[in-house]
Amino acid sequence: MTQVTSPWKTKGSRFVYENPWIHVREDDVVQPDGKPGIYGVVHFKNTAIGVLPIDEDDKICLVGQYRYAIERYSWEIPEGGCAEGEDYLDAAKRELIEETGMVASDWTRLGCSHLSNSVSDELAIFYLATGLTRGTPNPEGTEELAYKHVTFDQALDMVMQGEITDALSILAITHYGILRLSNKV
Amino acid sequence: MTQVTSPWKTKGSRFVYENPWIHVREDDVVQPDGKPGIYGVVHFKNTAIGVLPIDEDDKICLVGQYRYAIERYSWEIPEGGCAEGEDYLDAAKRELIEETGMVASDWTRLGCSHLSNSVSDELAIFYLATGLTRGTPNPEGTEELAYKHVTFDQALDMVMQGEITDALSILAITHYGILRLSNKV
Repeated sequence: MTQVTSPWKTKGSRFVYENPWIHVREDDVVQPDGKPGIYGVVHFKNTAIGVLPIDEDDKICLVGQYRYAIERYSWEIPEGGCAEGEDYLDAAKRELIEETGMVASDWTRLGCSHLSNSVSDELAIFYLATGLTRGTPNPEGTEELAYKHVTFDQALDMVMQGEITDALSILAITHYGILRLSNKV
Repeated sequence: MTQVTSPWKTKGSRFVYENPWIHVREDDVVQPDGKPGIYGVVHFKNTAIGVLPIDEDDKICLVGQYRYAIERYSWEIPEGGCAEGEDYLDAAKRELIEETGMVASDWTRLGCSHLSNSVSDELAIFYLATGLTRGTPNPEGTEELAYKHVTFDQALDMVMQGEITDALSILAITHYGILRLSNKV
């Protein structure tokens, strides 16, 4: 039986930190077992948007960049943030053109996910983009991007071999992989 | 060509917040385009561990709990944190027995992922657990858990229909789904 009311009680909340992307607070709580505790919550101002762009040769465009927070280089699908109030699909179209220069004629929503629900409310939405027309990328100043065109099967292999570790990229690639392997696309 | 040195420069760093689970800092940076900026980084003290337990009837045990950070009820695979210095597999065994009471004789590492690499360094490792023996769960005080036994196909359907939104659960279920559908298990 799914319980809809929270077994947690919030007794107070203090502001900790804010920047253009996240807001951190610490709540005084009563835990489900009735004991007092604290809960640090990282609120994400943007929704994470991921785009799996597949062209007529069954190739997808992977974007490579150094990720500051993990201190590692990462190969990913085109991704970006959707500000509050912006339409998810509009943000997906904007990110695809910004990061890869491509425009897609067909869009399919593949799924959504809470990326790290023990600490944050970050939500991710991911799309399949087909019917692609090429153009010139126009990345943000915080992005120094490389590009790699691989077949979908190669991308799926990269996921299964642990060469792609970015959760949002894996989510989009495996969702589409499941649909393909079960002959639903 | 994969670039291994960071195109970011860190000029300074200030402590923002710490609790038993996360540490937040704000770095003064020079962005890849040479412009000054800031980067708020959420460091996770624990590695997230997920376990996909499949029994001899092809059923998996899903764990339901209210997630404070997203203010929603969530059905997930058994999950927990691995402290620095603890072995990932030991943590997986501990979490499985704590949350479900089950002991597994066979363990297979399915994959790993950075859950939210634009802001945090949170790493997740996920396992398949088989050869299960049932016992009595012993959850933490912060957990008020419900249980649901579904076949693997039902769990995969729940993922594809968006009924399971927890990233780590989706990652484990889709990885195993890909292996099954491509006849690799």
